[in-house]
Amino acid sequence: MDTKLTRINGGTVTTPKGFLAGAVEAGIKYRGRLDFGVLFSERPCNAAAVFTTNKIKSAPVVFDRQQMTKGKVQAIAVNSGCANACTGDKGMKNAAEMAALTGRKLAISRNAVLVASTGVIGTQLPMDKIEDAIKRLKLAASGGHDLARAMMTTDTFPKEIAVLVETASGRYAIGGVAKGAGMIHPNMATLLCFITTDASVNRALLSSALKKAVNQSFNMVSVDGDTSPSDTLVVMANSLSGVKVDRENMPAFQAGLNEVCLHLAKCVARDGEGATKLVEIIVEGAVSEKEARQAARTISTSPLVKTAIHGADPNWGRVIAAVGRSGIRLDEKRIDMFLNGTCVMCGGVPRDFDKEALSLSMKSKEVNIKVKLNLGVGKATAWGCDLSKEYVAINADYTT
Amino acid sequence: MDTKLTRINGGTVTTPKGFLAGAVEAGIKYRGRLDFGVLFSERPCNAAAVFTTNKIKSAPVVFDRQQMTKGKVQAIAVNSGCANACTGDKGMKNAAEMAALTGRKLAISRNAVLVASTGVIGTQLPMDKIEDAIKRLKLAASGGHDLARAMMTTDTFPKEIAVLVETASGRYAIGGVAKGAGMIHPNMATLLCFITTDASVNRALLSSALKKAVNQSFNMVSVDGDTSPSDTLVVMANSLSGVKVDRENMPAFQAGLNEVCLHLAKCVARDGEGATKLVEIIVEGAVSEKEARQAARTISTSPLVKTAIHGADPNWGRVIAAVGRSGIRLDEKRIDMFLNGTCVMCGGVPRDFDKEALSLSMKSKEVNIKVKLNLGVGKATAWGCDLSKEYVAINADYTT
Repeated sequence: MDTKLTRINGGTVTTPKGFLAGAVEAGIKYRGRLDFGVLFSERPCNAAAVFTTNKIKSAPVVFDRQQMTKGKVQAIAVNSGCANACTGDKGMKNAAEMAALTGRKLAISRNAVLVASTGVIGTQLPMDKIEDAIKRLKLAASGGHDLARAMMTTDTFPKEIAVLVETASGRYAIGGVAKGAGMIHPNMATLLCFITTDASVNRALLSSALKKAVNQSFNMVSVDGDTSPSDTLVVMANSLSGVKVDRENMPAFQAGLNEVCLHLAKCVARDGEGATKLVEIIVEGAVSEKEARQAARTISTSPLVKTAIHGADPNWGRVIAAVGRSGIRLDEKRIDMFLNGTCVMCGGVPRDFDKEALSLSMKSKEVNIKVKLNLGVGKATAWGCDLSKEYVAINADYTT
Repeated sequence: MDTKLTRINGGTVTTPKGFLAGAVEAGIKYRGRLDFGVLFSERPCNAAAVFTTNKIKSAPVVFDRQQMTKGKVQAIAVNSGCANACTGDKGMKNAAEMAALTGRKLAISRNAVLVASTGVIGTQLPMDKIEDAIKRLKLAASGGHDLARAMMTTDTFPKEIAVLVETASGRYAIGGVAKGAGMIHPNMATLLCFITTDASVNRALLSSALKKAVNQSFNMVSVDGDTSPSDTLVVMANSLSGVKVDRENMPAFQAGLNEVCLHLAKCVARDGEGATKLVEIIVEGAVSEKEARQAARTISTSPLVKTAIHGADPNWGRVIAAVGRSGIRLDEKRIDMFLNGTCVMCGGVPRDFDKEALSLSMKSKEVNIKVKLNLGVGKATAWGCDLSKEYVAINADYTT
């Protein structure tokens, strides 16, 4: 039997067997919406994680890195509205307390609990509200969707997915949930993302699969070039499907994990603060994959490219200027460029094209940029979004 | 006698003796405004220049780099509305033709003429319009201001200055003109800037003085993080004041040149596309000057910092997040931060402050950010601007 990968309709992070979640209104920053939640596995999980590369790390990131050395993980408590970053010793105590209170409520060791916080930097967690929220918390196998909502800050829609992997050894599911919006330029991690599976995967395999999946998904999206101190991505495997993933049947698991990460990463780019479009940037023919990635990411973060796309303006000179400053090796005379499939530059010189028709096609929800360097075999794809007045409006008045 | 440095009221690039300029409406892109000009020195000049580090270089940049090897410089022809970049062999021929036509008009060697073009990338220069403009051109010692206006694209005001340097050996002037607006993130150069002096300075000294001045001025400003393929900065010394600058009286010249560069660079930041504020970022106590520069520039380009400043929102967590992702060495627990002189973070933790009062002070035209890392003696200052809806409006619809 061949392996088969299917998207599960309405699937979420609690779709894999044995995972429960719940969320409540804690009133941390926002009123009348879910802002605290817990993801729980009935059985302790092998887990792997990647965290922010920002040298300023939130208290939850510092805390979770310690927790990850203590063995299995069984729960993650998460809140929005406060990032618990730049909060000193008190912030560290609060992160530990949030884990301890969650552990007590769930009757599991506090060592098996991770925490995550997202929101404003530089304010302390309101621990009375967190404590009260944990008391009121109820978990359910149908709770994944509420958890996705509780993690949102300026996100406009919850980001979730589940896939079914069918192999000769049996079937299992992989689910995931993420939040994005602003301060999004992951480097070995994303903002907040939790992935679950009922497959049985040992920690080393889980960790290596996660790195591969992240490298071509979350690490290739950008909303605004700002890497957050809170970036956390955790994958938990509870083995309740009874299917063991080993080196041999790893490709199917890797494909499933890739699919989950890629879907969530693209959701994050599409739902960037103020974004109206998902932009896909493909760079081919670079000297190396590394240089292709570098060029694709530079294009994806250029404010001039992003505003031109917002205005459906086929001003491709800005794309080539971004390639030129990205630091990669190039030969101007060999470069070809395509916007939504239309060749706008060929061999380094402008190509005549129907400007109105191309502008019209750029008004769609997805815009594609392809740059062929024609030097080598390095290629990469990055995802970003346009830059709108709404991004400015959202961010000019965030804490006041 | 001590040396003395004075700003000259209404001074411009033709304030130093023997420099003339003129500008005309060539109708390249815009109607009813100056868009072509020439700067001319009655005597051939020692010259030094720095150009863009973007690997995609405009035809004028490639041409000027060759011209600079041919000896003295006596004129610069400049146009706005078309960057003559990504224009292939035809673009190179047009740049050479623009220099030749200018040389013929001024009765000087074509080898002594530089050219500069700014505007849209990927369109050819309309040579009939350039030729006609050169025919109609009239030069005058009072023409500096017109030249400054002819160089503007989305700039809202011309950027010019002149200073008088008085030394024991005599007095001389240094003048300068620049254009900025968008695609501004100079790296060893700025967009377009021409500096003149009637001092006598040999090429080696001129070149070394220019590098020093640029390093702490143009190379520390950013509007949007996008480095242009057209960045060109030329300084011309015609010696008509009769004052010789040698190693001994170099400090006075360096001070004058620094003043001119700093003024123009800050004008460029203040007049960034859509900008409403000049932002000054000081980083102190870094392990090295290089790391201080890196942190200051990262803060100056962060869209989240820029939008917060636009909204007069004292959301300092975004500043510390930018420092953290800049890649420099730091110890979170030692960092202090000040916004407009108010301490908002001390020893890595939030400090209570009057949010309303600070927000009110951030509504002024200049905002100051100071980060003390308290690790070493490295310090640097960078300048940037806020990010407004107007930036998006200007750039979402530039070529269409």
